[in-house]
Amino acid sequence: MINGEKTTGQALRWGMVGGGRTGQVGYKHRTGAQRDGTYQLLAGAFDLDAEQGRDFGRNLGVAEERCYATYQELIASESQRADGVEVVSVATPNFSHYEITRALLQAGIHVVCEKPLFFTVAECVEIKKLAEEKGLIVGVTYGFTGHPLVHQMAAMVAKGMLGDIRLIDLQYTHGFNAGDDSDASEAVKWRTNPKTSGPTFVLGDIGTHLYYLSEVVLPELKIEKLLCDRKSFIASREPLEDHATVLMHYHNGARGRLWVTSVNAGNMGSQRYRFVGSKASVEWSDAHPDQLSYEIQGEPIRILHHGMPYLEAESLALDRMGALHTEGLGDSWANIYLWIAQAIRAQQRADQVFLAGHHCPGIDAGTEGVRWLENCVRSADADASWVEYT
Amino acid sequence: MINGEKTTGQALRWGMVGGGRTGQVGYKHRTGAQRDGTYQLLAGAFDLDAEQGRDFGRNLGVAEERCYATYQELIASESQRADGVEVVSVATPNFSHYEITRALLQAGIHVVCEKPLFFTVAECVEIKKLAEEKGLIVGVTYGFTGHPLVHQMAAMVAKGMLGDIRLIDLQYTHGFNAGDDSDASEAVKWRTNPKTSGPTFVLGDIGTHLYYLSEVVLPELKIEKLLCDRKSFIASREPLEDHATVLMHYHNGARGRLWVTSVNAGNMGSQRYRFVGSKASVEWSDAHPDQLSYEIQGEPIRILHHGMPYLEAESLALDRMGALHTEGLGDSWANIYLWIAQAIRAQQRADQVFLAGHHCPGIDAGTEGVRWLENCVRSADADASWVEYT
Amino acid sequence: MINGEKTTGQALRWGMVGGGRTGQVGYKHRTGAQRDGTYQLLAGAFDLDAEQGRDFGRNLGVAEERCYATYQELIASESQRADGVEVVSVATPNFSHYEITRALLQAGIHVVCEKPLFFTVAECVEIKKLAEEKGLIVGVTYGFTGHPLVHQMAAMVAKGMLGDIRLIDLQYTHGFNAGDDSDASEAVKWRTNPKTSGPTFVLGDIGTHLYYLSEVVLPELKIEKLLCDRKSFIASREPLEDHATVLMHYHNGARGRLWVTSVNAGNMGSQRYRFVGSKASVEWSDAHPDQLSYEIQGEPIRILHHGMPYLEAESLALDRMGALHTEGLGDSWANIYLWIAQAIRAQQRADQVFLAGHHCPGIDAGTEGVRWLENCVRSADADASWVEYT
Amino acid sequence: MINGEKTTGQALRWGMVGGGRTGQVGYKHRTGAQRDGTYQLLAGAFDLDAEQGRDFGRNLGVAEERCYATYQELIASESQRADGVEVVSVATPNFSHYEITRALLQAGIHVVCEKPLFFTVAECVEIKKLAEEKGLIVGVTYGFTGHPLVHQMAAMVAKGMLGDIRLIDLQYTHGFNAGDDSDASEAVKWRTNPKTSGPTFVLGDIGTHLYYLSEVVLPELKIEKLLCDRKSFIASREPLEDHATVLMHYHNGARGRLWVTSVNAGNMGSQRYRFVGSKASVEWSDAHPDQLSYEIQGEPIRILHHGMPYLEAESLALDRMGALHTEGLGDSWANIYLWIAQAIRAQQRADQVFLAGHHCPGIDAGTEGVRWLENCVRSADADASWVEYT
Ligand SMILES: NC(=O)c1ccc[n+]([C@@H]2O[C@H](COP(=O)([O-])OP(=O)(O)OC[C@H]3O[C@@H](n4cnc5c(N)ncnc54)[C@H](O)[C@@H]3O)[C@@H](O)[C@H]2O)c1
Ligand SMILES: NC(=O)c1ccc[n+]([C@@H]2O[C@H](COP(=O)([O-])OP(=O)(O)OC[C@H]3O[C@@H](n4cnc5c(N)ncnc54)[C@H](O)[C@@H]3O)[C@@H](O)[C@H]2O)c1
Ligand SMILES: NC(=O)c1ccc[n+]([C@@H]2O[C@H](COP(=O)([O-])OP(=O)(O)OC[C@H]3O[C@@H](n4cnc5c(N)ncnc54)[C@H](O)[C@@H]3O)[C@@H](O)[C@H]2O)c1
Ligand SMILES: NC(=O)c1ccc[n+]([C@@H]2O[C@H](COP(=O)([O-])OP(=O)(O)OC[C@H]3O[C@@H](n4cnc5c(N)ncnc54)[C@H](O)[C@@H]3O)[C@@H](O)[C@H]2O)c1
Repeated sequence: MINGEKTTGQALRWGMVGGGRTGQVGYKHRTGAQRDGTYQLLAGAFDLDAEQGRDFGRNLGVAEERCYATYQELIASESQRADGVEVVSVATPNFSHYEITRALLQAGIHVVCEKPLFFTVAECVEIKKLAEEKGLIVGVTYGFTGHPLVHQMAAMVAKGMLGDIRLIDLQYTHGFNAGDDSDASEAVKWRTNPKTSGPTFVLGDIGTHLYYLSEVVLPELKIEKLLCDRKSFIASREPLEDHATVLMHYHNGARGRLWVTSVNAGNMGSQRYRFVGSKASVEWSDAHPDQLSYEIQGEPIRILHHGMPYLEAESLALDRMGALHTEGLGDSWANIYLWIAQAIRAQQRADQVFLAGHHCPGIDAGTEGVRWLENCVRSADADASWVEYT
Repeated sequence: MINGEKTTGQALRWGMVGGGRTGQVGYKHRTGAQRDGTYQLLAGAFDLDAEQGRDFGRNLGVAEERCYATYQELIASESQRADGVEVVSVATPNFSHYEITRALLQAGIHVVCEKPLFFTVAECVEIKKLAEEKGLIVGVTYGFTGHPLVHQMAAMVAKGMLGDIRLIDLQYTHGFNAGDDSDASEAVKWRTNPKTSGPTFVLGDIGTHLYYLSEVVLPELKIEKLLCDRKSFIASREPLEDHATVLMHYHNGARGRLWVTSVNAGNMGSQRYRFVGSKASVEWSDAHPDQLSYEIQGEPIRILHHGMPYLEAESLALDRMGALHTEGLGDSWANIYLWIAQAIRAQQRADQVFLAGHHCPGIDAGTEGVRWLENCVRSADADASWVEYT
Repeated sequence: MINGEKTTGQALRWGMVGGGRTGQVGYKHRTGAQRDGTYQLLAGAFDLDAEQGRDFGRNLGVAEERCYATYQELIASESQRADGVEVVSVATPNFSHYEITRALLQAGIHVVCEKPLFFTVAECVEIKKLAEEKGLIVGVTYGFTGHPLVHQMAAMVAKGMLGDIRLIDLQYTHGFNAGDDSDASEAVKWRTNPKTSGPTFVLGDIGTHLYYLSEVVLPELKIEKLLCDRKSFIASREPLEDHATVLMHYHNGARGRLWVTSVNAGNMGSQRYRFVGSKASVEWSDAHPDQLSYEIQGEPIRILHHGMPYLEAESLALDRMGALHTEGLGDSWANIYLWIAQAIRAQQRADQVFLAGHHCPGIDAGTEGVRWLENCVRSADADASWVEYT
Repeated sequence: MINGEKTTGQALRWGMVGGGRTGQVGYKHRTGAQRDGTYQLLAGAFDLDAEQGRDFGRNLGVAEERCYATYQELIASESQRADGVEVVSVATPNFSHYEITRALLQAGIHVVCEKPLFFTVAECVEIKKLAEEKGLIVGVTYGFTGHPLVHQMAAMVAKGMLGDIRLIDLQYTHGFNAGDDSDASEAVKWRTNPKTSGPTFVLGDIGTHLYYLSEVVLPELKIEKLLCDRKSFIASREPLEDHATVLMHYHNGARGRLWVTSVNAGNMGSQRYRFVGSKASVEWSDAHPDQLSYEIQGEPIRILHHGMPYLEAESLALDRMGALHTEGLGDSWANIYLWIAQAIRAQQRADQVFLAGHHCPGIDAGTEGVRWLENCVRSADADASWVEYT
């Protein structure tokens, strides 16, 4: 149970690039990082519109002179300060993740970056090398994997409670782009343009969450081949997709199905994860993150509830509200930011033993997401045919 | 609202082949047919074990001399009687559907046959010709399509309430065969043997229900190409499948996904149907057949309830219990048997006008199911590649 | 598992009084009785409007001359016939239950009567005496208690799986009378008039279902005192109630709460039953009759599913559709009518041993419902104060 | 939509009394207060065990010298500091709320106090007077009323969308005390002792949440008379109750039912709120706080989803995560702490206009909860009879 005691000591001096007043994801970063006083927000280049960014920063309690017009200014100035930020979160559109992350690392600043991490695996490999040279952490905000019951599923799989894994069914299908984009917000505009979004729309935007969570639950499973069928129902989004289905063959013989779309009219974004083994299945949705269905063939379905003593220790350790009360996405983000803080503190004290055993979505998690996207695109571009996973 | 008034006049003189004491589906036929006194059970060859069949028939109230040892005896004897049966239901394993149906038609008897209808489209075409020559009806018991809210969905699509159809998501995934077949019942044994089951296991056994229901809701949609990936997780079931995923491209540009499996550990058989249009979606499951989710992007989700005055007339006309009370699969079967009875009576009075406008799962519905299976197998056998739908 | 084999031999010769074309409950009787060919509908006085009743009977397949204008005619004529009806169901408004039942019994005909059985306990006692003298059965159609999972709850309580019973929470709360009665149907008109409905509206109309089902699950529990607070939100329904809350103290110290209303706007009639013991609770609703929540404090909630082998034998024996498929209210009524048929056949062969061990809602069940209503009214009329249960 | 911009300017200098390492509710205060940097935790007397309290405070980032052994020390020292705390939260067992609150107010410090506020209305009245004299705020942490959809219900009622309110059904029924108290935690021990808990156990502990939320939704409704039936199923808890039912008559003729218990075996704490009007009903549960059922008789049930544009402005303004993502109890607490901060800042600048229009659970809300408890106890002690509400 997490109660706000700072296992990381002194709050990390923290800054943000992006995530400004109108940004969609910025508040999730702030609420996650500041939840337990683990991070203290001291600097930011919050917005493309420098004036708005400055005004916003002020309202967040950031000192006037540390509200910067650009990330370059932020880096230049903060690197000079004795009390400069130790870590910066990047919550900008996809295309700038790579350049901003690189610049931060070069300046010796730890990074928390949004997903999809970069456009190519090659970029990921390069940044991983840079981070290693500099001795810095790159955390990636796969925001749903901080939910305690995700780790309950992982622990159950690890203990063999599901038997051999056979079927994996993944779904993140909302309807917020069911209409055309004539009145699209900035957030939709950049997502539907390959220059700013990268080689995918919904696959990268929401599919990477599904894929990463499945990796957390099933770390041993490797994809052998994959087929991706994608399509845009709104012409202006082409060549990017607003719907995709991915079929996966894993090397233990398991089969996977994944569905992402943003034209699922009327749906507010339900994710669904079902993992079927030879003995039992588990099913979980972020829409009701406090419950997990555990189904042994021939026995009554069991509904596991967060925070209850019968859960695995790995899950209970992540609980914040206790069984009587409801957790939300903010609680999950708080866990992710806590893990990243722990990784940074360990890195700072060169504690490789801690880091080796520490769960935290980092550069490798980011890289695997980009690799999966590359494979999906390769299949989709080959008329939705099967491709070997590389 | 259906209240038991026989729109078909005198009860049809009815017999059964198969569906004996241990048969899985036999009771559904009897409860569907006898519900409103529309059919009177007068003869049967209920069981491969003649003695058990006779004893069973007696317990059902069938006269001793009309409990036959074989379907051949039944046909021979009943054709001689002035009060011989007018219609016979075939509830035997798949492989005998064709020969029994043909023999019944040749003897001038209407047929109600189980799905999957036959092994090949060629057989279906031949039987259709025979039935036309003889002026006889072949009904097919796709048992889930009698639920009133299925027809609500069809009416809503027809009125354009969903807009252009974009996505179709179909699922029938139970776990009753999650274990191996060392203690398999007869019903499982014949299903996992190509000689008795035909070219498929779960695709034919449960996938045809999904496909037919989607045809009822979306009669205009035609598949252009399809990909089927199938697999058996229990080796003894090979070459048949206990899991399959089918992707479909329709010629209006819509995309379909279908999942069938019988190794979905812990699941008691939930079906899920979701139809997504440019304006709205509908979602329905046979597990809670009394409610339908109607989802317009940007508006509150609406839960439609069976028997309520706001439903379309097509749906209300099929209700039996009224909104205050719950319907089950038996009510759906009763509607299907009623439609078949109406078709037989119309055929008997050569009422082509009635028949032209009459909804009833008949030989064409059965044929399309077999055609879909043929296409699935062709794709699956070509390494799960895309095939043109033929 | 029930498969339609007639454990009662020859079909019972059966008639109906009431339940005509526009009657609400008539179809439930017919679908329940005729489901397995256990009863054959041969006579009826279906309607106050004799002409409509005759036409309706004909459509149900009843011979012209056995469609009677009044129940008196039915009795007079059927008693004379060698093949006269053995049992008659009474599906008329409450006020005529007593006189029709009495007349049928006096003529030597078994009775199936609707609830609430009569207006007073005194009438019940008198009829019980008459039935005993005549050696006849009076069945009462508490239609929800045929659901298999109701008997699962009863078996679990009997085995002590819940521990000591502490709390009972009962609810049947629909909204179909939320509006006023300016356009009321016949069925609403008689229900809101004490002359035709008796001393209660919703307490008798729907509350008796709750009370009887709780008796089936908890046969040992006796009410010690009770408080009933009732009210009519639509003035024209006074002095009868469209809302009532009843608090009950049982003599083992358990506490009960019961809520009935027909002004619960927007609700289509959900019932809820929750039984809380010192070890565990069970919860069931007729809206999803196939599942039962079994909740042991400190363990995952278990969802029991109808037809599964892990259920108690008492429950499995009542299943009709099997676990893969859905049951509805019609299946429950079929069980009730089957139990009554079994009781009648046993009575006919004077099999007291069978009758002693046989579960069937009979005259005593009907009487206890009326007794409970009398206590409720006594409390309500005493300014909703506590009254000793008598 | 709340995005963390501090509408209150500089963070409030904040302290805590109670809510130590093993305290149940302490983390909810900290996560609510610190969420958006609105409060800065600078001092505390966190624990009865001074050493543990100090250690805990240190881990929370509080300076060594501001971790006090007792609340008296805290007050003495902080009142002397120029940078002393402006507001202190009281998260101690019920019996000390009054004395600690009084001491804080006397020292000129704003208070956030837990519910049930005090033991008697007389104490509430006295403290209100003191707070007014001192010009200080007393906020009360009714933690569930910060959920946006609670305010959706209130707005809908205010606009007349439900029509005249008829029925109110309230329930908070968990099972965490189903067993006896032989191994009870401190939190259970003090709750079951009248000296430390006050005149009630579950009525005060969880019933006050139900009652306050109903006041937020229905501010106009006043109770006229009330009946409370309470009982303890575990003898050692007597004379306090672990189960209670309350019936309420409102002066517009509406009827209310409320149920609280902590022996509802197997239940993890579901609250249920249903408000039934002459036109429509709404139903909400804290277990799934993101959805609200809106039910107009004769129309499909509508499921309203948090964060959607169709909601009332009052509800949307409180959203933090946006419609695509899930909120939890922590988000609700953050809103409550924000309201209190806004009240304190307004009070500090003597902005009576702002305060008059400002929604915030304050001393009056706390007082009404205690008044309701007094009435419940008066009824319960009079053999669960009706009492006039005073
Ligand atoms: N982890 C999640 O659950 C999740 C959810 C939503 C978005 N995201 C990711 O977050 C990123 C941002 O998405 P969004 O939806 O918030 O986008 P958005 O368009 O809503 O907001 C982007 C913000 O970044 C600012 N910005 C852009 N370029 C900048 C620059 N060079 N310097 C400073 N500020 C700059 C903009 O002014 C804006 O405030 C994307 O990579 C997206 O994939 C992740
Ligand atoms: N429509 C549906 O929902 C549904 C559901 C289940 C089964 N089915 C179909 O029903 C058919 C039967 O399936 P089942 O599961 O009931 O099989 P089953 O093996 O349980 O029962 C088959 C019955 O037919 C009898 N039988 C077999 N051959 C016979 C013959 N030549 N003459 C007389 N009796 C014979 C057997 O003795 C047995 O009683 C299959 O085609 C299956 O696909 C349909
Ligand atoms: N068990 C249940 O679940 C359930 C459900 C609904 C109604 N009921 C009960 O069934 C009874 C009937 O209710 P309803 O809602 O169907 O009423 P209704 O008014 O809809 O129908 C009553 C029918 O009885 C006929 N009738 C009335 N008096 C008659 C007479 N003397 N002779 C012949 N026919 C006569 C009417 O013409 C009409 O067809 C009531 O006692 C009611 O409480 C029980
Ligand atoms: N608003 C809600 O949802 C909610 C939820 C739970 C509890 N509560 C309320 O919160 C209060 C505390 O309940 P709890 O369950 O956390 O109790 P608890 O027994 O779990 O914790 C009480 C804490 O206060 C400390 N404490 C006690 N007396 C103290 C004193 N004089 N000085 C300093 N510290 C002291 C204890 O050491 C402990 O850390 C109660 O009034 C309870 O009703 C409210």
